Amino acid sequence: MTQTRAYAALSAGQTVKPHMIDRRELRPDDVVMDILYCGICHTDLHMARNDWGHTMYPFVPGHEIVGRVSAVGSAVTKHQPGDLVAVGCMVDSCRTCAPCQAGEEHYCANQFTGTYGGLDRHDGTPTYGGYSERIVVSEDFVLRVPEGLDPERAGPLLCAGVTAWSALRHADVGPGTKVAVAGLGGIGHMAVKLAAGLGAEVTVVTTSPGKRDDALELGACDVLISSDADAMGAAMGRFDVVIDTIPVQHDLSPYLMLTGLDGKVIVLGMIDMVPSFHSGILLMGRRVLTASAIGSIRETQEVLDFCAEKGINSDCETISVSQINEAFERMERSDVKYRFVIDMGTMA
Amino acid sequence: MTQTRAYAALSAGQTVKPHMIDRRELRPDDVVMDILYCGICHTDLHMARNDWGHTMYPFVPGHEIVGRVSAVGSAVTKHQPGDLVAVGCMVDSCRTCAPCQAGEEHYCANQFTGTYGGLDRHDGTPTYGGYSERIVVSEDFVLRVPEGLDPERAGPLLCAGVTAWSALRHADVGPGTKVAVAGLGGIGHMAVKLAAGLGAEVTVVTTSPGKRDDALELGACDVLISSDADAMGAAMGRFDVVIDTIPVQHDLSPYLMLTGLDGKVIVLGMIDMVPSFHSGILLMGRRVLTASAIGSIRETQEVLDFCAEKGINSDCETISVSQINEAFERMERSDVKYRFVIDMGTMA
Repeated sequence: MTQTRAYAALSAGQTVKPHMIDRRELRPDDVVMDILYCGICHTDLHMARNDWGHTMYPFVPGHEIVGRVSAVGSAVTKHQPGDLVAVGCMVDSCRTCAPCQAGEEHYCANQFTGTYGGLDRHDGTPTYGGYSERIVVSEDFVLRVPEGLDPERAGPLLCAGVTAWSALRHADVGPGTKVAVAGLGGIGHMAVKLAAGLGAEVTVVTTSPGKRDDALELGACDVLISSDADAMGAAMGRFDVVIDTIPVQHDLSPYLMLTGLDGKVIVLGMIDMVPSFHSGILLMGRRVLTASAIGSIRETQEVLDFCAEKGINSDCETISVSQINEAFERMERSDVKYRFVIDMGTMA
Repeated sequence: MTQTRAYAALSAGQTVKPHMIDRRELRPDDVVMDILYCGICHTDLHMARNDWGHTMYPFVPGHEIVGRVSAVGSAVTKHQPGDLVAVGCMVDSCRTCAPCQAGEEHYCANQFTGTYGGLDRHDGTPTYGGYSERIVVSEDFVLRVPEGLDPERAGPLLCAGVTAWSALRHADVGPGTKVAVAGLGGIGHMAVKLAAGLGAEVTVVTTSPGKRDDALELGACDVLISSDADAMGAAMGRFDVVIDTIPVQHDLSPYLMLTGLDGKVIVLGMIDMVPSFHSGILLMGRRVLTASAIGSIRETQEVLDFCAEKGINSDCETISVSQINEAFERMERSDVKYRFVIDMGTMA
């Protein structure tokens, strides 16, 4: 075991504080990385506060991790010391079930091992996230950060980015596709950039007329204000795909109605009861309601490579470790464009 | 105008009774058919009773119509006198919108003209259904009844059959697909036969243990009793597609849970508010909730041809015109296997 500095919540009511954790000794397939940057995801905060009732303390958040390989196990072939690498939401999965075999570890039938809040499949120890100076991860769950991608802004691609990417790709979004993105937070702003990067025609649907300029700057060609009934009515049937990143409970009917024949609403933000809606809305246009969770390791590498190739970055605000708790508060007020990234070098 | 004998509801509270209606004179693209058989669909009863609030009286039900061509307009090329033909739920559409152009008239952006309860697009007169001795329909909405298909049992293919067919085909059901069919009425029994005919492995999900033998006889290889929590739990994730034909409001969660990764629940029966369910059920397996309405003219011809080729028939009970009101009552009690068909020859 190696004592490692981290920031942890020690119980549900507390802010995160400096805390020493143990990282395991290298197994043959393990990579050790020194963490450079770690994005802050809303899930970090939900888990730190035990909002979902299953947090184990001490809890170290962080699953948008960028760093440099400092050592590798004896059997590692994919990475070597000095490589710029990344880790997202998963650090392992059963690797034997049908989804794992098909390269869809994020739907592992035996549940993937979360980067934090999980239990290691070999020794049963808790997994700790990237608000930390170092992490040890099996090489198959370590991504390459390609040349040309700014490591400071790559973190949010590992969760927010791949969540949007996986949904867009699975919906075959490309040139000619009319995509509406509802909600303009961490996932939403990446959905706009990635959909536009894929050649789609992107419209942002938002409650805030003030976000128009931001939306256009991110790559949208139009903005719909969701409270404007006339505009929403006029847009009925206009879209092929709605990427719904709104993180709170809301009626899906208006978003379903925005789609045309065989239109799809993909829920990425709301983890909650879906309010009752009329089946006729699906039936009238063979519309599809679906949802999607993060993305596979293959897709995560894909989105990193795609962003490097297209010059796409997440928009983020870099903070020091001392600002994490303040960043949590600001994130709750949506006072960030669009993601916080912790510079782990400030932990010294 | 040609005076034509029919059975009509004259107001919401009444049974159907003999009634004379006018059928239009032949337009150049029209086909006149003498009706031999007409299936009884639950929609006939809903409309006769004005359950949906938009019935115009007199109301002549019937959209599972089989007959023989007696005359054709001057421009008709697809049918000729003596041909065995059929008419389903639609008799016209705008023919110019994108769905119509794509051969998806059933999703016509300007609303298809219903075989009954609609208004003719040319002269604005009401459309009257197949509980009648004769009907006049534009040739493009008239289907061929292929050799080898029993005309007495073909009627239910025009609505119940094509509704199941369109959903199965759109979900790419074929050899190897694991299909669950929930509900065993008019649509459900056709879904079992057609899915089995397409090579899928079919399981019937029903509330009634008594329907086991019927289900197996229709082509299912297994039966799940929906009230058996253990059996439903053990079947979680087992299916690729659930065809949900249950005609009353019900929780979709247990049916969504039956599907695995990328599983689909296709709602064909419930025209009602979808009860609230948790988005996590969709998210955990990228599951899809959709619904589907009847089928296109192309698909209707396809299902007729497929049934003729495979020797598939609907299971139905033939009645005389004098038994229509009694059949309505029995249908409400689900006291029919699985569809009533009126022998219009009994109208003499």
